[in-house]
Amino acid sequence: MAVDEKVIQEIVRQILAAKGLQSAPAEPKKEAPQASDEFPIIPVGVSARHVHLSRKDMDTLFGPGSELTPIKPLMGGQYAAKEQVTIIGPSLRSIERVRVLGPLRKQSQVEISATDSFVLKVKPPVRPSGDLKGSAGITIVGPKGVVKLEEGCIIANRHIHMSPEDAKRFGVKDGDYVNTLAEGERRTMLYGVQIRVSPEYTLEMHIDTDDANAIGFKDKTEVTMFKR
Amino acid sequence: MAVDEKVIQEIVRQILAAKGLQSAPAEPKKEAPQASDEFPIIPVGVSARHVHLSRKDMDTLFGPGSELTPIKPLMGGQYAAKEQVTIIGPSLRSIERVRVLGPLRKQSQVEISATDSFVLKVKPPVRPSGDLKGSAGITIVGPKGVVKLEEGCIIANRHIHMSPEDAKRFGVKDGDYVNTLAEGERRTMLYGVQIRVSPEYTLEMHIDTDDANAIGFKDKTEVTMFKR
Repeated sequence: MAVDEKVIQEIVRQILAAKGLQSAPAEPKKEAPQASDEFPIIPVGVSARHVHLSRKDMDTLFGPGSELTPIKPLMGGQYAAKEQVTIIGPSLRSIERVRVLGPLRKQSQVEISATDSFVLKVKPPVRPSGDLKGSAGITIVGPKGVVKLEEGCIIANRHIHMSPEDAKRFGVKDGDYVNTLAEGERRTMLYGVQIRVSPEYTLEMHIDTDDANAIGFKDKTEVTMFKR
Repeated sequence: MAVDEKVIQEIVRQILAAKGLQSAPAEPKKEAPQASDEFPIIPVGVSARHVHLSRKDMDTLFGPGSELTPIKPLMGGQYAAKEQVTIIGPSLRSIERVRVLGPLRKQSQVEISATDSFVLKVKPPVRPSGDLKGSAGITIVGPKGVVKLEEGCIIANRHIHMSPEDAKRFGVKDGDYVNTLAEGERRTMLYGVQIRVSPEYTLEMHIDTDDANAIGFKDKTEVTMFKR
């Protein structure tokens, strides 16, 4: 019986959907996942710990009226700045040389990994960037002053940036959640990956250093996206 | 049509098997995965970086004829020892206070995480414990001397310890590979988890600190096991 693999998978999906069950993502072939709009291949970028600053906190940390110095452009009009800070939680240890990202924002935000959170003894929630209400407090030290944030420290959620064209092609929209599979010797499926759509975005999944190490991230790591 | 969910999943599995395809694991309900012999719940333990020593290296690091001092019993007759060492790779940075595990072994072994490997600038392979041929070199410093291992540094693979009774109940055997799903805000499926069976083992999945942070490990974290 010559039935296409994809046909069977579609039948399976429909049976489960008819039963109100969630279909498990089909496993792509290990050696060569077939890139398609149904199962797109997404390049992965790793976000190391970093800080976004408000105008007010920039003034305190780097001096009144000081400006960030862009050294590397990032997606969506953001950039890595020359400026760095030290972050301190309620432990004896601090983390130095934490990169500031520009431009300035309405509210300061400190994005760290779970690994960092154990060093600093802070308990940040896993959140989308900008969703800071009730997040963890943390102290930022700059060359000109110190800022004690009551909230603003988070572990950034797993997310994929893409253009509206990509979103249309893949059949997803801003705010959707998908799953992504990383192949290799530390094969891992990351669930709950948030879709972020903007004309300024290029296609890239952003994960923190913990997820990166869990999946055995190397340069040019890619994942396969599964809609849920 | 009143068809049991498990019946459908079994049909699906058989269709895919008949096509020579690998079936994707069914997704358990998010809120309350149903513990069963088919989808057993496995407690998770996190292995921090540690060192196993040979008699010869123990002599060099802690003095001829020195013995390890057990301070905490571990599974399978192993124990955490009072003794600690410093490990150094070809970077300017070392990692101090690395726990030695006893009893002594035939060959010294240093188990670190990918995060550690970037600090030390070593490139250990992901391996089962004891599989050291061609693994990374590393230097160990003790109070009485220094050992330069030509090989012995690995990133331990994900694995599950269990008794022969558990293995029989779950339908797996020593050396099999399974997948495990961790629920929560960092929902993650870890693939390629090796089964290790011994009468001395109690049921526990061991992962390194990178995987632990990726899945959002907290005390009492459990995963659901899926046979492949």
